[in-house]
Amino acid sequence: MTSPAADSLFRPEDLQRYAAALLAGGGFGCKQAQQTAEGLVWANARGVDSHGVLRIPRYVEMVEAGTIRPDAEPVVIERKAAISVLEAGRTPGAAAMIAAMQEAIEQASKFGVGWCSARNITHAGAIGYYALQAASKGCVGIVMTASGPLMAYQGSRGSAVSTNPLAIAVPSQGDPIVLDMSTANVALGKVMAARDAGKSIPPDWGVDAAGQPTTDPNQVATLTPLGGPKGSGLSLMIEILASAARFFA
Amino acid sequence: MTSPAADSLFRPEDLQRYAAALLAGGGFGCKQAQQTAEGLVWANARGVDSHGVLRIPRYVEMVEAGTIRPDAEPVVIERKAAISVLEAGRTPGAAAMIAAMQEAIEQASKFGVGWCSARNITHAGAIGYYALQAASKGCVGIVMTASGPLMAYQGSRGSAVSTNPLAIAVPSQGDPIVLDMSTANVALGKVMAARDAGKSIPPDWGVDAAGQPTTDPNQVATLTPLGGPKGSGLSLMIEILASAARFFA
Repeated sequence: MTSPAADSLFRPEDLQRYAAALLAGGGFGCKQAQQTAEGLVWANARGVDSHGVLRIPRYVEMVEAGTIRPDAEPVVIERKAAISVLEAGRTPGAAAMIAAMQEAIEQASKFGVGWCSARNITHAGAIGYYALQAASKGCVGIVMTASGPLMAYQGSRGSAVSTNPLAIAVPSQGDPIVLDMSTANVALGKVMAARDAGKSIPPDWGVDAAGQPTTDPNQVATLTPLGGPKGSGLSLMIEILASAARFFA
Repeated sequence: MTSPAADSLFRPEDLQRYAAALLAGGGFGCKQAQQTAEGLVWANARGVDSHGVLRIPRYVEMVEAGTIRPDAEPVVIERKAAISVLEAGRTPGAAAMIAAMQEAIEQASKFGVGWCSARNITHAGAIGYYALQAASKGCVGIVMTASGPLMAYQGSRGSAVSTNPLAIAVPSQGDPIVLDMSTANVALGKVMAARDAGKSIPPDWGVDAAGQPTTDPNQVATLTPLGGPKGSGLSLMIEILASAARFFA
């Protein structure tokens, strides 16, 4: 008994199989395709379509452009007590992040805490997925990623920092509790949707080329940080922490 | 050569000595008074007067009320590899936080990372101070504290979580870089200042008793979380993480 509406939906396992096949067709290694598809479909199922299977065409383009090495194997290149550095070698982001979290979980099983910094990753998708990987092993998971500028620093003109996200997951007696947030006020996708719909936006979503708040989505030159100085500072700190391990390992 | 304006300012070291004497007069142990005074004056010098010496009368009241035990010694009661739990015994907050960070730094020197959870602390002041304690030893410092409800959870009525702050400090070639932020949109002190001045406030500072945004500071029943759901979730996670160590140590 399915309704017409339900008939038009994919079951997660079907979408995942289809997504993995698309990625494999685009050059992804079998394992990398599976890992990436699982993370994308997890995001769709969570309602975060911006980080779901719609990313696949771009991922395949990145393989063609050489910015993703679709079957590279991530390698832990340094390890000093509970701190590790993983060389991702531009493998698909999910493959690198899963390996990095696996390393951190192993370190935590020995030392109580583990910290693994992955370098040369590619787009990681929704990072709450990797935080949950820790929670599923009875650990607290904390995940951050940093990328290139696409958000203003409070008071600045133009892009200065990324919308660097932070995710935290903790095991509980029921389902794990997970936070998965960017350091921007809103995602770029919301500005783009308002642009497409010809609608105005609240003045705290983006700034224009002069660094001034704007309600016209066509004038948005860059996104604004969560709560101004706080999101600015948190994003900057994530950028610093993302590379800190290499100084300690 | 000092201007009249400069004559009316305290030098930090004088203010610190005076603050320590006031605290000692209020029953603080000598070490606890020194540690607390240093942290308060650090906040004043940073321009965060809300966490500076104006707290002293309240701290002394708390000693009189028995909620601060002014010469209690914090003790590490559990230690498992890089994770520790410190029993603060309601010692002045600065004494507990300094001891907890000292423990985490020692763990980090052995394991690369250290995590110390302090329980039964009292008001910690501006927590960036303790993050800098780590940075001064060449470590990255991450500090969070949790307390009782005084902020709404996004979409809720009434106070549900605290304005739980997060501080991160990293060493650099020059001065350390430090972030020290609460998870609220603004501090309660700003609402109180608007109330005293008879001014209206932006609609995202607080909600009224019905959980609705208000521009009347007299109608503010509780504060609003940084960016709504993001500050809500971050505050909740800090509350969980603050107690997580006891499950792992």
